Amino acid sequence: MSAARPRIAFAMTEDVYRRIFTPESLEAFARVAEPAGLVTEFDSAEARAVLAETEILVSGWGCPVLDEAALEAAPRLRAVVHAAGSVKHHLTPAVWQRGIEVSSAAAANAVPVAEYTVAMIVLAGKRVLPIARHYRLEREAFDVEAAFPGLGNYGTRVGIVGASKIGREVVERLRGFDLEVVVYDPYLDDAEATALGVASVGLDELLATSDIVSVHAPSLPETQGMIGERAIALLKPGATLINTARGELIDQEALTARVLRGDLYAVLDVTTPWVLAPGHPLYDHENVLLTPHIAGSLGVELGRLAEVALDETARLAQGLPLAHPVRAEELAFTA
Amino acid sequence: MSAARPRIAFAMTEDVYRRIFTPESLEAFARVAEPAGLVTEFDSAEARAVLAETEILVSGWGCPVLDEAALEAAPRLRAVVHAAGSVKHHLTPAVWQRGIEVSSAAAANAVPVAEYTVAMIVLAGKRVLPIARHYRLEREAFDVEAAFPGLGNYGTRVGIVGASKIGREVVERLRGFDLEVVVYDPYLDDAEATALGVASVGLDELLATSDIVSVHAPSLPETQGMIGERAIALLKPGATLINTARGELIDQEALTARVLRGDLYAVLDVTTPWVLAPGHPLYDHENVLLTPHIAGSLGVELGRLAEVALDETARLAQGLPLAHPVRAEELAFTA
Repeated sequence: MSAARPRIAFAMTEDVYRRIFTPESLEAFARVAEPAGLVTEFDSAEARAVLAETEILVSGWGCPVLDEAALEAAPRLRAVVHAAGSVKHHLTPAVWQRGIEVSSAAAANAVPVAEYTVAMIVLAGKRVLPIARHYRLEREAFDVEAAFPGLGNYGTRVGIVGASKIGREVVERLRGFDLEVVVYDPYLDDAEATALGVASVGLDELLATSDIVSVHAPSLPETQGMIGERAIALLKPGATLINTARGELIDQEALTARVLRGDLYAVLDVTTPWVLAPGHPLYDHENVLLTPHIAGSLGVELGRLAEVALDETARLAQGLPLAHPVRAEELAFTA
Repeated sequence: MSAARPRIAFAMTEDVYRRIFTPESLEAFARVAEPAGLVTEFDSAEARAVLAETEILVSGWGCPVLDEAALEAAPRLRAVVHAAGSVKHHLTPAVWQRGIEVSSAAAANAVPVAEYTVAMIVLAGKRVLPIARHYRLEREAFDVEAAFPGLGNYGTRVGIVGASKIGREVVERLRGFDLEVVVYDPYLDDAEATALGVASVGLDELLATSDIVSVHAPSLPETQGMIGERAIALLKPGATLINTARGELIDQEALTARVLRGDLYAVLDVTTPWVLAPGHPLYDHENVLLTPHIAGSLGVELGRLAEVALDETARLAQGLPLAHPVRAEELAFTA
């Protein structure tokens, strides 16, 4: 408790810094550490003067790359606390080689995506948006069960593609539902699947038998287009495909063609490119809910990232182990 | 196990019977009881012949009223197992006076409504539908945080009006979220509120401070219009009002006027009348999600009601107490 408070610096864009950290959260940081302010690049004399003293770097979206040159300017750096998900964009192998500890708020960042996904699963099972649309058009009572056979969330099958942090958070939240959850993940063994309370199945079986499919695989060279044309064709008529992960995991042309055929629903929070061309048919199709990458932490949810970074900083200041350490080996198969 | 299987009859409309009970579930009933078929009225000689032998009546939507005359025709009746929520429409005081046990699937029926409500809370917090609409119109990247200040589900306040079965199910499911949940219910004391993990507040405070308000009060003479014009005016600008209960709980004219002013979102699964006139402005307003009473058990979710009725029948056959008994005293303050 009486140990010197560690020197910390924030490294991200100014916009991100202002969005994530409120005056109150910065005061809380100042109680456990000595903040030396924000750096948005590692090259200027000012930035290097900050780095020279920094023991803990609290990074965020837009943090410059921590390469050899930056690390040489930061000889006292012992930990990088990332107030966001993936650390791949700014950390280099040199960080781990120097024994610098790394923490990530990926678990906190997974929360809103998992919440969003579960909400979309409920909506998809209930056919809420198609029913609302139909009701708005017809303006009279109609037999929803006849119009939407099989609707409802009871015993229906949900396929989770990828037992990533987010995928597991979704599975965890689906435990309370009367749904049959199956997972595809090449790294998930049967014992782990049992612990998660799900059946581990092959991708083809998942796609061909699930009423709702949600994609939570990391974007890696080997996952690009993993839901390809053949996979899209396997999806059941009337199935819903949810993608809150990355557009490039799915063959978007095949997906679009299938949507246009009218027997597939899609909830797409991500596309390729991130903003579709104005004429793209996915904007207009009644079976598609298209959103501009909002499932992850946004608005007040950024406070959760600040909270985790603060907790990790306090742990380091007290000599406690990180709650959310990132190991170099994980990076090969995570986001 | 070797006791004679009780004689049961089903009482509801033919349509409801066919929707709720699959051939498989009827086979399961036949394993624990002796089904004498379906009656849709209690007056014909055929129906009275069935009633004469019936020990357990499995009732559903559209069950005729069990009045003195019907009860006299059913001298061996010892239990009514209702495969739906409220028993108010078909049970009379005479049922309890005769010591007939009553069970209801209200708890099972609460499940889909609670799931629906929680999904809508997530969507409301994230401003999903307004963002999707904006994106579809603009077809370019935009700053969602600037366009929708305060968006996100973290620390935001959710007000639950009514600690009914459904209200409690919603509260239970919201435990896993980083939300501040407050409840208004005149019958909820502080100890119960603490056990539920929520703060009990007055209705005015709830309305004036909650970002999202969800109504789960029963429809009783004293709850008609409980969210009146003054209450509607108390709602925060940008708040979302969710109603999956009954339209008559809310002053719909005041609600509509406030929606038209543009600073209130509404998720309405119920209205007054149940189907609005074709010209009603609630159909068209961009801040409204209007659905035709779909939050409750529908489609495959009816299987859950069959499951509960089967379990209760099996309990009665084995001399076990009902899992979901309904006491006459409850009816004064529940749906």
